[in-house]
Amino acid sequence: MKATHSNAQHVDLQLAETLFRQLERATRQGSGIVRDSYGSGEQAAHDIVRAAGERIGLEAAVDAIGNLTLTLAGKDRRVPRILIGSHLDSVPQGGNFDGAAGVVAGVCAMAALRQSGFVPSCDITVMAIRAEESAWFDVSYLGSGGALGLLDPQCLSVRRSDNGRTLEETLLERGFDPTAIRQRRRLIEPGHVRAYLELHIEQGPRLVAEGLPAAVVTGIRGCKRFRNARCLGQYGHSGAQPRPLRHDAVAATVAFLHHMEGVWLREEERGADLLMTTGELYTDAAAHAPSKVSGETRFVLDLRSLSEDIMETVASEARRAAREIGNRYRVSFDLGTATDSPPAMMDPRLRGCLMGLLERPLEMPSGAGHDAAVFAKAGIPSAMIFVRNDHGSHNPDEAMTIEDFGVGLRALVGLLQRFPL
Amino acid sequence: MKATHSNAQHVDLQLAETLFRQLERATRQGSGIVRDSYGSGEQAAHDIVRAAGERIGLEAAVDAIGNLTLTLAGKDRRVPRILIGSHLDSVPQGGNFDGAAGVVAGVCAMAALRQSGFVPSCDITVMAIRAEESAWFDVSYLGSGGALGLLDPQCLSVRRSDNGRTLEETLLERGFDPTAIRQRRRLIEPGHVRAYLELHIEQGPRLVAEGLPAAVVTGIRGCKRFRNARCLGQYGHSGAQPRPLRHDAVAATVAFLHHMEGVWLREEERGADLLMTTGELYTDAAAHAPSKVSGETRFVLDLRSLSEDIMETVASEARRAAREIGNRYRVSFDLGTATDSPPAMMDPRLRGCLMGLLERPLEMPSGAGHDAAVFAKAGIPSAMIFVRNDHGSHNPDEAMTIEDFGVGLRALVGLLQRFPL
Repeated sequence: MKATHSNAQHVDLQLAETLFRQLERATRQGSGIVRDSYGSGEQAAHDIVRAAGERIGLEAAVDAIGNLTLTLAGKDRRVPRILIGSHLDSVPQGGNFDGAAGVVAGVCAMAALRQSGFVPSCDITVMAIRAEESAWFDVSYLGSGGALGLLDPQCLSVRRSDNGRTLEETLLERGFDPTAIRQRRRLIEPGHVRAYLELHIEQGPRLVAEGLPAAVVTGIRGCKRFRNARCLGQYGHSGAQPRPLRHDAVAATVAFLHHMEGVWLREEERGADLLMTTGELYTDAAAHAPSKVSGETRFVLDLRSLSEDIMETVASEARRAAREIGNRYRVSFDLGTATDSPPAMMDPRLRGCLMGLLERPLEMPSGAGHDAAVFAKAGIPSAMIFVRNDHGSHNPDEAMTIEDFGVGLRALVGLLQRFPL
Repeated sequence: MKATHSNAQHVDLQLAETLFRQLERATRQGSGIVRDSYGSGEQAAHDIVRAAGERIGLEAAVDAIGNLTLTLAGKDRRVPRILIGSHLDSVPQGGNFDGAAGVVAGVCAMAALRQSGFVPSCDITVMAIRAEESAWFDVSYLGSGGALGLLDPQCLSVRRSDNGRTLEETLLERGFDPTAIRQRRRLIEPGHVRAYLELHIEQGPRLVAEGLPAAVVTGIRGCKRFRNARCLGQYGHSGAQPRPLRHDAVAATVAFLHHMEGVWLREEERGADLLMTTGELYTDAAAHAPSKVSGETRFVLDLRSLSEDIMETVASEARRAAREIGNRYRVSFDLGTATDSPPAMMDPRLRGCLMGLLERPLEMPSGAGHDAAVFAKAGIPSAMIFVRNDHGSHNPDEAMTIEDFGVGLRALVGLLQRFPL
């Protein structure tokens, strides 16, 4: 604990505030933040961060697909380095902190290390990653996935949702090199990275509810999602069709989702990590009516867990229940195929070290995806720090205090000072 | 039973077939029937029916708001008459039988009586009623409600959904007199009507399921409808928001609708006449997402019953459950005000007589509204005959066989021959 507090004086929260203010001024549009992936908003953020890194003497470089790196040289420059990464793009009309907080933390951590005269044993590189949200291209993790040579080259022909230009055209316009993606070229060798560290605002309400400024992430939940589930019944007259003769898609869907909530409650009771959400549910506006038994619903069933097994078990139960309830209600469910994003566990040693650096330590899963998941799945020991944030993320009301940011930042600096672990 | 069978020979199903064919030819547009209320489609149907009535010697007249009457003179023309009514308008892309079957039945019944030399004790009038569906004006029962002086004169300023002309302008264009509606003038005195009789295709699937050609209607169900029910929660990240911190509008709505289904099942078990339908249910397409806990749903809860009490009891339970489940899920339900259309019971003596005229008698409620409900609520003894019809109504696939129509028609003729009851 003493160690944490002795770090406190080295952290320059003024620098952080200045950077957050600069980022906001440069990329605010109306009430929200717009840092369009591979667009002018994201580039403006990269320019601000690069200038800040150069001011404190970091070596700036940009990789083939536009990721910016700012490096503090270590004693031995040939040994695997530490990456501190996060993204600088936002969703349309997003907030100022989702993504940017992690990059600002990296720059501030480097400033703190320099100011304290600390020379790390290996290079430490702040990586401002491109297009994690990638809301404009609808392919997430373009920057981290591309850097690790993991992208399907077909993504190059995905078009930007607003101007219709392909990712390839967009990369070329910005002076980057799409062949890196086409050839699945690795711009980072996982074996040359000792650790990947990411600070991020919490996107859920838990730290606010717990009254804690920061937490250590156990892992990033996987997601199994029935994106295009449907229930097909038959339209009928609401006043003329007796219950036993109905093929009521709404009634069946309600029964199905109610059953699945029961499954969730049972999993929760036995301590399983699971979230279950139907964020979209709708009858067909072109065919439904107040006086019609509904003939069709569409809905999403989104499962999240740190455990692949739990998601698979629950998905199987969903398929079984859909058949049984479909029969019972004389309708047919088509859950469609589930998209699958496996969980990514954070490194136990890094987690343990971070826990020791928090005054009131708490570990919690991340429900949202992060670049850290891409690095972890590539075999790089990874860790994440969550900072308390009110009102959720991906909206203009994101609310992280600079004091809470400071708590997360100090833990990050403390961890860097402890390498090699 | 013998009486019924002796009527059989008097019924001219060829006439019925001819009329249905003429109606279809004149008003088919694409795959469906379009008899736009107070428009050219409805007028074409009126012209066909009027010509048919005149050919068999009925006295034709048109009232101030366009209802066509075709009268067979009785022995005493001053005593209260019998009305055989139904509408000739359809919904957009409707079927050939909803409404028209009742008017064709009336004309065929008159033809049968004339042919058999039967002279009724009182006038019998076939009434081709205007704008019952009134899909283009969104105010139902314009013809029957107007004839009984029951319409709110404000309906005159309602605009036709397609051409924007008001009902008043439309009536004037057709040569009718909107002042009748403005002054709430009665064009029919309830005391001068001995009975109102209506044959209609069944709009539900029950006669098909029961394997019966026709049935007697017990009453027309009332409807209590929460047309604009809402559940307000709070959007959140589907992967980051733990269940106990959610304000999940979909989960709460599912719990509410599941609870209400349980209420329905219990009412059904104790023999109550009740139908419950949620035909519309949707999250907000402008705000929902697969990865968001939903912050809002909108839905309809439609209750139908022959008993006002049952509907009131269930509506109260809905309001109570909405509060309780809203609290449980940390959301708020706003069921809004319920629209209310009371049930209308058919006359027991007329029902009893019709039951005696069916070879395989069955009584059942009507779930859909009909002009008969307007007449019954005005204190006129009313009765309805349902004829089997596959595929429901209000669609181009309405399927009534001429044989089934004959069964209903013979019961109607039999009833007419038994007056005064």
